[in-house]
Amino acid sequence: MNFTSDNVTGAAPEILKALTDASSGPTPSYGEDPLTARVTERIAALFEREVVVFPVATGSAANALALAALAPPYGAIYCHEMSHVNTDECGAPEMFTAGAKLVGLPGAGGKLDPATLRATLDKSGAGNVHHVQPAAVTLTQATESGTVYTPAEVAALAEVAKAFRLPVHMDGARFANAVARLGYSPADLTWRAGVDVLSFGATKNGALAAEAVVFFRPELAESFAFRRKRAGHLFSKMRFLSAQLDGYLTDGLWLRLARHANAMADRLSAGLAALPGVTLRDPVEANEIFISLPEPMILGLEHRGYGFYRWDGQTVRLVTAWNTAAEDVDRMIADATALANACAQDS
Amino acid sequence: MNFTSDNVTGAAPEILKALTDASSGPTPSYGEDPLTARVTERIAALFEREVVVFPVATGSAANALALAALAPPYGAIYCHEMSHVNTDECGAPEMFTAGAKLVGLPGAGGKLDPATLRATLDKSGAGNVHHVQPAAVTLTQATESGTVYTPAEVAALAEVAKAFRLPVHMDGARFANAVARLGYSPADLTWRAGVDVLSFGATKNGALAAEAVVFFRPELAESFAFRRKRAGHLFSKMRFLSAQLDGYLTDGLWLRLARHANAMADRLSAGLAALPGVTLRDPVEANEIFISLPEPMILGLEHRGYGFYRWDGQTVRLVTAWNTAAEDVDRMIADATALANACAQDS
Amino acid sequence: MNFTSDNVTGAAPEILKALTDASSGPTPSYGEDPLTARVTERIAALFEREVVVFPVATGSAANALALAALAPPYGAIYCHEMSHVNTDECGAPEMFTAGAKLVGLPGAGGKLDPATLRATLDKSGAGNVHHVQPAAVTLTQATESGTVYTPAEVAALAEVAKAFRLPVHMDGARFANAVARLGYSPADLTWRAGVDVLSFGATKNGALAAEAVVFFRPELAESFAFRRKRAGHLFSKMRFLSAQLDGYLTDGLWLRLARHANAMADRLSAGLAALPGVTLRDPVEANEIFISLPEPMILGLEHRGYGFYRWDGQTVRLVTAWNTAAEDVDRMIADATALANACAQDS
Amino acid sequence: MNFTSDNVTGAAPEILKALTDASSGPTPSYGEDPLTARVTERIAALFEREVVVFPVATGSAANALALAALAPPYGAIYCHEMSHVNTDECGAPEMFTAGAKLVGLPGAGGKLDPATLRATLDKSGAGNVHHVQPAAVTLTQATESGTVYTPAEVAALAEVAKAFRLPVHMDGARFANAVARLGYSPADLTWRAGVDVLSFGATKNGALAAEAVVFFRPELAESFAFRRKRAGHLFSKMRFLSAQLDGYLTDGLWLRLARHANAMADRLSAGLAALPGVTLRDPVEANEIFISLPEPMILGLEHRGYGFYRWDGQTVRLVTAWNTAAEDVDRMIADATALANACAQDS
Repeated sequence: MNFTSDNVTGAAPEILKALTDASSGPTPSYGEDPLTARVTERIAALFEREVVVFPVATGSAANALALAALAPPYGAIYCHEMSHVNTDECGAPEMFTAGAKLVGLPGAGGKLDPATLRATLDKSGAGNVHHVQPAAVTLTQATESGTVYTPAEVAALAEVAKAFRLPVHMDGARFANAVARLGYSPADLTWRAGVDVLSFGATKNGALAAEAVVFFRPELAESFAFRRKRAGHLFSKMRFLSAQLDGYLTDGLWLRLARHANAMADRLSAGLAALPGVTLRDPVEANEIFISLPEPMILGLEHRGYGFYRWDGQTVRLVTAWNTAAEDVDRMIADATALANACAQDS
Repeated sequence: MNFTSDNVTGAAPEILKALTDASSGPTPSYGEDPLTARVTERIAALFEREVVVFPVATGSAANALALAALAPPYGAIYCHEMSHVNTDECGAPEMFTAGAKLVGLPGAGGKLDPATLRATLDKSGAGNVHHVQPAAVTLTQATESGTVYTPAEVAALAEVAKAFRLPVHMDGARFANAVARLGYSPADLTWRAGVDVLSFGATKNGALAAEAVVFFRPELAESFAFRRKRAGHLFSKMRFLSAQLDGYLTDGLWLRLARHANAMADRLSAGLAALPGVTLRDPVEANEIFISLPEPMILGLEHRGYGFYRWDGQTVRLVTAWNTAAEDVDRMIADATALANACAQDS
Repeated sequence: MNFTSDNVTGAAPEILKALTDASSGPTPSYGEDPLTARVTERIAALFEREVVVFPVATGSAANALALAALAPPYGAIYCHEMSHVNTDECGAPEMFTAGAKLVGLPGAGGKLDPATLRATLDKSGAGNVHHVQPAAVTLTQATESGTVYTPAEVAALAEVAKAFRLPVHMDGARFANAVARLGYSPADLTWRAGVDVLSFGATKNGALAAEAVVFFRPELAESFAFRRKRAGHLFSKMRFLSAQLDGYLTDGLWLRLARHANAMADRLSAGLAALPGVTLRDPVEANEIFISLPEPMILGLEHRGYGFYRWDGQTVRLVTAWNTAAEDVDRMIADATALANACAQDS
Repeated sequence: MNFTSDNVTGAAPEILKALTDASSGPTPSYGEDPLTARVTERIAALFEREVVVFPVATGSAANALALAALAPPYGAIYCHEMSHVNTDECGAPEMFTAGAKLVGLPGAGGKLDPATLRATLDKSGAGNVHHVQPAAVTLTQATESGTVYTPAEVAALAEVAKAFRLPVHMDGARFANAVARLGYSPADLTWRAGVDVLSFGATKNGALAAEAVVFFRPELAESFAFRRKRAGHLFSKMRFLSAQLDGYLTDGLWLRLARHANAMADRLSAGLAALPGVTLRDPVEANEIFISLPEPMILGLEHRGYGFYRWDGQTVRLVTAWNTAAEDVDRMIADATALANACAQDS
């Protein structure tokens, strides 16, 4: 069973069907099609306000383009030191912004800390030509540690950002998982808490390759269309991005899929955490589990063909997905239990 | 009927099926999957040599990334003045190369002219720090004027490029149409004629969004993987790009679709060119028709719902595609004929 | 005698003295010194209005930084096809703007033509994401052909630019020569005619290495200080740039030096143009002479040690400077006359 | 007395004289002059090997250009977290490299630590497209904490870098101070210890604005001339940069000036450190003093007109220079002593 990442999965049948259905007949290219317009309407309805929406194919593009719309080349973008934009994009934000600086900040549970952010901004040298200039704050929801920000936590960060007149971006590659977990509305988790731009992910949660960059403040979006084209991220047959998003948002599919992934993560982490020698590194609040296992258990599971990442030392990352089967989860727990028992007998 | 562009079409059923089939089961992400490996093998077989292949989703990305692999920021890239990379990418090559300069050269029929290229390179100031440095030559096959380069024409340009030690890139957004027209092998039209890197298009010819960047000289590809990732063009679920290319290359689908598009262009241009007051601006050698129509005929066709671009004055562009119906072509010819006759009676 | 360029000269004694005088005692660094403030005041007085001034050391920096303040990465900058920014900066504007596109336009006498500019802008595709977006117009005063724009000519270009809401930059590497020739005030030649930013050159006209970027619209200058620092063009010991500019502007030195250079160009071109077989390519309106000489005369002059550039075929460029000696000019005329006579006897 | 920075000083008379002397007569521009050639020879002799030398005017330019010659846009540059390139250049390295990432590492006394560097490189993800790729190591000599690296310390870092095939750059804005302190030869402190490129500073140590980028491995310098021009850092009247460097290197002026600055730092720090409540934060090994003073002493000194930076809390930075007068140092010590005594009486 493959718990390596949610991106080892294929696409949800509903989304594949939407894609196939969208293929028939001619339609205007480059986003002038009715399906793309409908996606904007759906997202506006979902977020309960007017929005400007740009579909793109990858999360890297969504984040880097969004940040480039916010930060000048001489800007500083504040993020968690372990954030994906800072560590796993091979410098995409730096490329798209033409050289802005990502300032990685520490924070427990993968979350930015308002006090740390404020302290950093207090001595950021705004207006001093020797220093890159504060330009934006970006946070990840759900975080890279598998935790989620509550609306209050988002608001506390946004408040600091706003005090320094900085726009707030949210990397929502796993936004659906956060919404599914928290039970708050998408609006509560974003613009009502001070988020200005959201990278609204679908790829990991059942799409083939589709994300929507959602601007809650239209004036921030002015350069985006040109930047997207210039970055090669404007699809000529845009209907095929929009169809995925349309299917994703139809009949609550996006939340249904995320709830399932979260439930599987809960089930798996609960089963494993009950075993001796096993410790959760972070609370499991989305579909990622960071958990410490005894070395023999890690080896035994690998030997039996379970796929997962060794994160750091004995901490491994297990990711469940929209299509993770409960029986696979249960089998892994059973196997881990057997390994734990064998280990106990040995000692 | 919509002759606006080949990108107003959906996807070929065979490619949609390949996509759907590829969705089942987990598979490694980011291009480590067997399907992506198979695409490389297929392309190697098709081109009769070892190649390095990178699937991407758009032609803009394919071209800009390929050029960035060839040209330093202080480089000059020689292209036709009307080439897509020069006029229709909102500066993508400039972004990806970090500021290289596209030098647009004139040339009849949308083709670069070896003598013009040589004359330009002769006074390019190579080695002189005041001038951008010759870095690459790029040509489009089929061209932006709907013509095609013969292998000899490609070789003549490549010979000039090689004399100045410049690599040659081919923008093959409509490469299939050129191969279908010319009857030469893909190898003859590319590396045997001196092409070093090919953007091998599929999107316009029946895919949803898929292009392959094909390096015939592996040493030129060294930075590509990093550049692709950094540009947000590395798909996590790469199988969905590769599946499209796989379907495209299966059982000669790519050529079959292109032959159809070309045949429809022939049929349409022949029918129209026979009418009084109608003149072809360029020979029709792929699936694009640049043709001068009498103004009343243009208005009449627009009135009847035919879609096409007004290119320049009375010259319009008509593009046929992999799925253009012969009856639609015939109907347009009939309508144009009726308009021509009506016009003749008026005068 | 060296007529290769005005940059083969040293520095005017007055400027060297100002530099030396400025060296004594401590003074705030990075432009916070009183001398830099005085330079701004002097320039404001000279241009009869409030200005924002940034001293830099090279014309390349002045122009590229100014253009980067005006054009986004997806912008188009309209310039003469032979302009220095387009041909002789190794792509500096592209680097500083992060990839904007220079659009070189033809124009007689090295001057941009308002009709050509308007026609180009009419079909520039403003608002269309496929095309780089019109961002700025830049003109060179005196031009790269040794001619000058009258205030009316500048205004005609600026009027077109303003109709498309584009700011106007003037590359004034030889601004002093233009002012000296035309007799109009600096204000008349710049902001009163619609210029928004001026690169006010001093290096070629007697300074060591100093130019002032002068913003007539302060709101355009907002990013400049950061861009200058980031480009390594903020001098820690700024006093040494400002001292040069201060000396340059003291007691009308800048105009006196330029008048001399112009007078020497007049003298030299008049003397040469009177000879048989000699033709001026462009009117001599500043300190550059583009002139066609018989091949034997070229060779003879080179043989006697005269330095100049072979521009194109038999056209050579001769540049006089702030310190060109009249006797050197006269000697060259005499030698050229002797060569012309010898040639006449031969034939 | 101004101890704010060494850049509040003017220029050494010997350097001003060299500059003035260099002004007479015409000379080839853009570095083709004999004086520039002589500077290269002098630097080669000083470093006891062949070198490629590029004069530039600022340390920001020297460092950013050198790093751009070493690191691709997707590169990682390892530096001390407090290094000038990381904190005080408004992102110049990011601009010049087109977006490479500076990875700031902790290290006592402002020095990079070999073990930390190795541990970082061990998990840098070399070859993994998701991560920026290790490209260069840069260290500052003397450091931003006023300490110096011994040849052995440089070699230990370079050894780690070489193990990962990374070139080593040294920011030598205060290289002279380090050489003056350590007594080792310039060669021992650079290439013999594994340094590949040196930014050899002169500005802070008596020049007006001049630094030399010195390549010990010529193959690394291939792109430099183009990058320098493109960045606006190629001076047309290059003689005026070279003259400064020539004067700097004549008769050991550079070392003499640095020794004086160091001696003044020793004298000042010794005098202050002897007072109650005063603690040196770092050993004084060059011309910068980081020292903790009682708050009343800070206020008292400021009140008496002494200039210095408040660094952090009660730690202030005092910088001596090539022209610091011993009597000014002594006066400050006396005043500080008086303040300390007054303070003691109060309590």
